[in-house]
Amino acid sequence: MSLLSQRVNNLGESKTLAMARMTNELKAQGVDVTNLTLGEPDFSPFDFFKESAKKAIDENYCRYSPVPGYPELKEAICEKLERDNNLTYSPSQIVVSTGAKQSIANLMLSLVNEGEEVVLPAPYWVTYYELIQFAQGTPKVIFAGVDQDFKITAAQLDEAINEKTKAFLFSNPCNPTGAVYSREELESLVTVFEKYPHVQIISDEIYEHIVYDESLVSLGSFDSIKDRVITVNGLSKGFAVTGWRLGYIAASDEVAKACGKIQSQFTSGTNVITQRAAIDALKMDPTSIMPERTQIFKKRRDLICEGLSQIDGIEISIPNGAFYVFPNISSFFGKTVNGKKIENSQDVSTVLLQDFHLGSTPGHAFGAEGYIRLSYAASEQDLLQAIEKLRCFAQTCA
Amino acid sequence: MSLLSQRVNNLGESKTLAMARMTNELKAQGVDVTNLTLGEPDFSPFDFFKESAKKAIDENYCRYSPVPGYPELKEAICEKLERDNNLTYSPSQIVVSTGAKQSIANLMLSLVNEGEEVVLPAPYWVTYYELIQFAQGTPKVIFAGVDQDFKITAAQLDEAINEKTKAFLFSNPCNPTGAVYSREELESLVTVFEKYPHVQIISDEIYEHIVYDESLVSLGSFDSIKDRVITVNGLSKGFAVTGWRLGYIAASDEVAKACGKIQSQFTSGTNVITQRAAIDALKMDPTSIMPERTQIFKKRRDLICEGLSQIDGIEISIPNGAFYVFPNISSFFGKTVNGKKIENSQDVSTVLLQDFHLGSTPGHAFGAEGYIRLSYAASEQDLLQAIEKLRCFAQTCA
Repeated sequence: MSLLSQRVNNLGESKTLAMARMTNELKAQGVDVTNLTLGEPDFSPFDFFKESAKKAIDENYCRYSPVPGYPELKEAICEKLERDNNLTYSPSQIVVSTGAKQSIANLMLSLVNEGEEVVLPAPYWVTYYELIQFAQGTPKVIFAGVDQDFKITAAQLDEAINEKTKAFLFSNPCNPTGAVYSREELESLVTVFEKYPHVQIISDEIYEHIVYDESLVSLGSFDSIKDRVITVNGLSKGFAVTGWRLGYIAASDEVAKACGKIQSQFTSGTNVITQRAAIDALKMDPTSIMPERTQIFKKRRDLICEGLSQIDGIEISIPNGAFYVFPNISSFFGKTVNGKKIENSQDVSTVLLQDFHLGSTPGHAFGAEGYIRLSYAASEQDLLQAIEKLRCFAQTCA
Repeated sequence: MSLLSQRVNNLGESKTLAMARMTNELKAQGVDVTNLTLGEPDFSPFDFFKESAKKAIDENYCRYSPVPGYPELKEAICEKLERDNNLTYSPSQIVVSTGAKQSIANLMLSLVNEGEEVVLPAPYWVTYYELIQFAQGTPKVIFAGVDQDFKITAAQLDEAINEKTKAFLFSNPCNPTGAVYSREELESLVTVFEKYPHVQIISDEIYEHIVYDESLVSLGSFDSIKDRVITVNGLSKGFAVTGWRLGYIAASDEVAKACGKIQSQFTSGTNVITQRAAIDALKMDPTSIMPERTQIFKKRRDLICEGLSQIDGIEISIPNGAFYVFPNISSFFGKTVNGKKIENSQDVSTVLLQDFHLGSTPGHAFGAEGYIRLSYAASEQDLLQAIEKLRCFAQTCA
C-alpha cells in the first residue's frame, strides 16, 4: 500500500508558485533579481477597507458565519453585480469562498463527472486545468495564440462543444494574457452557446477592475444565456487583498446550493473579518476608487509593451486588462545562450532567471508553449530593468 | 446529462448545521428557544489576539502567504507542540489551513484511495465520515457507547484494522461526547498500532485546551508510533475564533507536502491576518490564559450533568473535555409526546425543538443513534432552562 493517494500523485504542483519560489530563493541569496512572476497587485489595501476590518475585530466578529457568507454580504454582492455588471442575481444564488480559487474548485467538484468535458480556452490559468482533472473531467483545450490576440473564435468554440461538454471555463480579463473580449466578440460566442443549452458557462471576472480601454462586459449580461452563466469574482485583485482570501460565485440556485454543500464539508464560511470588510468595500462606487490605480497599471503596461516591441525575436499582443503581458518567445528555440540550449519556454524562464536574474513564468504552465508570462505589477524601475535584461538575453542568443 | 455531479449528490449536508439553522429560524420567529446546538465557544477573542490582528492590518499584511503558512507561524506551531504537547516536529512538517476541517479534507484527499478503509471510532464528528466517503474511502466504524464512556478498547481497534486500513481518525477530546482518553487508555491503543505499521494515525486535538481533570496526553508523544501520528489542531476552540478559520497539521514531510499540494489548488494559504495573530497567540503560555475559561466550562459541565443525572430515562457519562454532553435518550423510543411517536434521535431532537423549544443535535448525525448532543457553550441560565425543558419532555413522554 503506497502512502499517498493516486489523486495527489496525479495533481501538479502549481507551476506559477514554483517559479515565484525559485525567484525568491535567488533573491534571498542577495542576487539583484527582477521579479515579474507575481500574480498580485503591489499596492496596499485601501485605508477604508483596513478600517472596516479593524472595526469588525473591535466588534468581536469571531463566530462561524453561514457557509455561503453573511446575508448582508450576499446582498452587497447582488447590488454590486447589478450596479457594475448589469447582472441580476438574488442572495440565495451567491456563495462566498476562501478565494476565487475555491469558487472554481467548488464548481468543478459540483458539476463534473468522470469523462465529462470542460471547454478551456488556452492560454488558461493553470489551476483551471488541474481542477478539471481533479474532478475526473477532461479539459478540452482550444488554443488562441498571439495572432488571435489570445481570443478564441466562435468557430473554434462551436467545434469544441459536444454532448459530453459539461461546462465552459475562462477568465475575462485573462490571466495569463491580459486579453479582454469586446462586446462584439462575446456576442459571437453567445450565438454558439445558444445552440448548446446543456453547457454551463463559467466567467471568471476577478480582474474586472483592471481594464484599460473600455469597461468590462460581463458574459452573464446576455439575456439568452444568463440562466447558465456562473459569474466568478472576488476582492483579491481590485482591492489588493490577495492574502485576505475572498472570492464568490453567482449562479443558479441549484449550482449555488451544491457549491455550498461542498464548501460546508471543506472549509465552512470564509474568514469573517474579511467578509465584514467586503460588505463596505462592495458598497463603494468603484469609479470613485479604482481609476487611480488602473491608470498606474496602464502606464506600466505602456512602458513594458513599448520596451518589448523593440526587442528582436519577441512578439506581443497589447493587453487590455489584468497586469500581465504574454510575449511569444518561440523564435529563440533552437538557439544557445551562454552554452545552454533553449528548447522550450521552461528553458527560457530558467535561463532568464539564472543568467539574467529576471523572474518570469514559462508559458507551458498556462497551456501555451512558446510564450512566457511577465507580470507588470512591479515598479517602473523594475520594468525598465526587466526590459534591459530581456534585450540582453535576446542579443546573447545565438 | 444531469446538472450536478454524482459526488455532490452523494455528499450529505452537515446535519449539525441543519439543526442549528432550524433552531435559529424558530428563534427568529420570536420563540424563546434555548439553543444547545452550538459547536463553538460563546466567549470573545482575547484582547491581545485582537490587537495582534489589528497590528497586522496596520502593517499592510495583504499579499499571498506561502501555501502552508508563514515560516514564523510554522515555527511558532512547532514550539507550541513541543512546549504543550511533548511533540517534536520541524517547520517543514506543518501545513496551516482554513480551519481544522480543511486539514482533515487535505488529509483524506492525500491519503485515501478508492476501497481503502479509515478506522473511525463512533460517536464521531460528522465531517469525518463525509470526507472519508468523499475521498472514495470506506469508513470502518467502531462503536463505543455510554457504557464504555465513549472510548474504544484495544480489542475493538485490533479487530477493525486489516490490510486495507489506510488510517485511523479520531478527536481527543471528543466532539460530540466530551470523552478524553487517559495516558493508560492511549497506551493500550498504541500497543495495537505498533502491530500495524502501514496505518497512519490521525489525532484531532482541537479541543486540547478544554480539559478538566488532567491535561491532555497527545497521541504523537508515544515514541513507538510518533512517525505515523498526524496531529491536527487549530485556534478555533481554545482561542474562541471559529470564524477566523485557522487549523493546522503536523505530519511526516511526505504527508505534509501532499497536503500542501492539495491546498495549493483549492484555497492557497489561509487568511494572512489570522496567521499573523496566531504567531503571537501560540507563543503565549496557555497556562496563563486558558484556565479562567476552562473553569467556566467546568462549572457549566457540572451544572448540566447534575441536572441531567436527575432526569429519569436519561443516562450520561460525565465528559472530561470539550463542551458537549452526550446523553443516551433511547429509553424514550417507542413512547409518545403530545401525540407524536418517538422512534429515533431525530424525533427526540425535533420534538425537543418544536414542543419544548430546546435546540439539540440528534446522535445519528454522529453515528450514534439513541443519543443527542447538548453543547454547554451557553450561559448558566440557558443551561438551567434546558434542564427544565428536558425534565418536562421526559415527564410528558408516555
